Amino acid sequence: SKTHKIAVIAGDGIGQEVMPEGLRAVEAASKKFGIDIEFTHFDWAHCNYYAQHGQMMPDDWFEQLKGFDAIFFGAVGWPATVPDHVSLWGSLLKFRRDFDLYVNLRPVRLMPGVPCPLANRKPGDIDFYVVRENTEGEYSSIGGRMYEGTERETVIQESVFSRKGTDRILKFAFDLAQSRPKKHLTSATKSNGIAITMPYWDERVEAMGAKYPDVRRDKYHIDILTAHFVLNPDRFDVVVASNLFGDILSDLGPACAGTIGIAPSANINPTRELPSLFEPVHGSAPDIFGKNIANPVAMIWSGAMMLDFLGNGEGKYRQAHDAMLAAIEEVLVNGPTTPDLGGKSNTTEVGKAVAAAI
Amino acid sequence: SKTHKIAVIAGDGIGQEVMPEGLRAVEAASKKFGIDIEFTHFDWAHCNYYAQHGQMMPDDWFEQLKGFDAIFFGAVGWPATVPDHVSLWGSLLKFRRDFDLYVNLRPVRLMPGVPCPLANRKPGDIDFYVVRENTEGEYSSIGGRMYEGTERETVIQESVFSRKGTDRILKFAFDLAQSRPKKHLTSATKSNGIAITMPYWDERVEAMGAKYPDVRRDKYHIDILTAHFVLNPDRFDVVVASNLFGDILSDLGPACAGTIGIAPSANINPTRELPSLFEPVHGSAPDIFGKNIANPVAMIWSGAMMLDFLGNGEGKYRQAHDAMLAAIEEVLVNGPTTPDLGGKSNTTEVGKAVAAAI
Ligand SMILES: CC(C)[C@H](C(=O)O)[C@@H](O)C(=O)O
Ligand SMILES: CC(C)[C@H](C(=O)O)[C@@H](O)C(=O)O
Repeated sequence: SKTHKIAVIAGDGIGQEVMPEGLRAVEAASKKFGIDIEFTHFDWAHCNYYAQHGQMMPDDWFEQLKGFDAIFFGAVGWPATVPDHVSLWGSLLKFRRDFDLYVNLRPVRLMPGVPCPLANRKPGDIDFYVVRENTEGEYSSIGGRMYEGTERETVIQESVFSRKGTDRILKFAFDLAQSRPKKHLTSATKSNGIAITMPYWDERVEAMGAKYPDVRRDKYHIDILTAHFVLNPDRFDVVVASNLFGDILSDLGPACAGTIGIAPSANINPTRELPSLFEPVHGSAPDIFGKNIANPVAMIWSGAMMLDFLGNGEGKYRQAHDAMLAAIEEVLVNGPTTPDLGGKSNTTEVGKAVAAAI
Repeated sequence: SKTHKIAVIAGDGIGQEVMPEGLRAVEAASKKFGIDIEFTHFDWAHCNYYAQHGQMMPDDWFEQLKGFDAIFFGAVGWPATVPDHVSLWGSLLKFRRDFDLYVNLRPVRLMPGVPCPLANRKPGDIDFYVVRENTEGEYSSIGGRMYEGTERETVIQESVFSRKGTDRILKFAFDLAQSRPKKHLTSATKSNGIAITMPYWDERVEAMGAKYPDVRRDKYHIDILTAHFVLNPDRFDVVVASNLFGDILSDLGPACAGTIGIAPSANINPTRELPSLFEPVHGSAPDIFGKNIANPVAMIWSGAMMLDFLGNGEGKYRQAHDAMLAAIEEVLVNGPTTPDLGGKSNTTEVGKAVAAAI
């Protein structure tokens, strides 16, 4: 049976603390279900590396990584020493672009045992996916400054939506919606205000939707959509969004479901010609780093998504994924939990408990 | 004493239904406190006008309106007949631009009597302002399409941040923060991802902040900021944001405080050389139009902000504002209320009750 080669990049801050627990859980599940995994650790794509080399990664990072089956990624960013846009565009956002990881798939689920900030919501009420475009849109590298340093200073940044980039993320989202019982797709737009790119987005949603007559679709402007996440989170099944809107919704969704400390994500290149990347939604959290109190569940859940992806959602891979999710649920309900969930345990204790439950 | 000339534009959908109640309340308060108001109604800036004239407003709209002291505005948009970007850019967004209404001030407050979707929150826990830049940023009119209709189709829209446009909204926000007991300003950014315009925004916030040493400031990326609106809404006092981020936060905030049906806004030109505009945050709501069930409180509260603005927050104007707010609170607590708040009353009944309470 095939050995899956995984590149491991822990990154900055709590990335360093949650990664060992992610690995522990992935190892436990792989062992149990007879999946062969080989981890290779990379000690770059973090801000200490930047301090020494003036860049986040070695020049041949692409060559070093391109042959892997997946990248297991912690978090990047240490704004006290490197501005966020430098560290992120020098690592994570480069991966998304250069490996063409055009799908950012982010489940939003209210898990048993997790206190919900919304009144009267229980597990089952919140269970949807945010499908985020991950390579273009508002995250562009075109633009600049003019009249710098003067009263007339003007700064411009372009949003870029291509037919190819838009259609492929919509196709992924409609396929996902079609595979789910509710077959419901919600598009995040802002075509009333952002009146050049967003009407185009709406047009492409309609064109793609015509090919999926069995998928019910609706759209909301991003402003009122964030309101519905709070007021009617049970209304959603698959929410497809541009890069920026998907970024916002995939923090807001998990917050409505209790905490971003457990939210996972898969940055996927569906062609599988280049490695996909699995990471928690949370960042490096400098404010809590060093105390070993970060919640490792997002990292572990990301590991589960990675195994599922490696096996195309089939057979022992799906079983391994499901076993990891069941173990997460068990630990969320019975403890131990980290302080963000009101518990008193540390990162390692929670990670060990999940691995044991697997 | 001066007669204040108010232009009244009810617009589309529920704008038509809530406007009479806004007027009723403003009249009651003006009468009680001896404020002279003269209303002039304009039957354009709605989609029926567009159907007849092929444009939202007459050519001389600017001339017709520029001499007024304020514009009292309902809502615009009827997407079944006119695409939103056409109706909005042909009316509301034109006012914001051409009257240079660069401040969009939006209070977010959990009012007594309003059921809160967040668990364990009570009035007092949510009480802050969103200060939204209202003339530039992501809402630009520069950009376009290329390779139209082909596989290579590409759509570009530019975000534009000027020094003048950025600094003046920041100054307004810092002044507001300084005038409040908590003296706390939060900046909404996304400088890690939107890496050209948003680092500039951060720089200008720091530069302006240096002039307000007594104002405590912090910043959050917009994604995690939306999460904190849900998880820690008591953390905020004045939140300053770009046009798009302010748009999002000023729907999300009111949703966290129960309903956008009561959220007011003031589109202000602080120079007072051109009329400022007062409108509910909600839109024209085609889905509930015609039933007379829309909540008129946002319209009435916007009217209170208008009176306060007309009198520069002083004397009888401030008293009129406060009396209107007290009347709103009384009706929210004791009823009658509209169905969005669980009540059984209609728009007119609620409006009459507020006017009576004034
Ligand atoms: C209707 C729309 C164009 C408008 C905006 O985006 O500014 C509205 O959402 C608002 O918040 O006033
Ligand atoms: C760190 C940041 C650049 C990143 C993003 O905006 O994409 C993060 O918020 C995420 O959601 O993965």
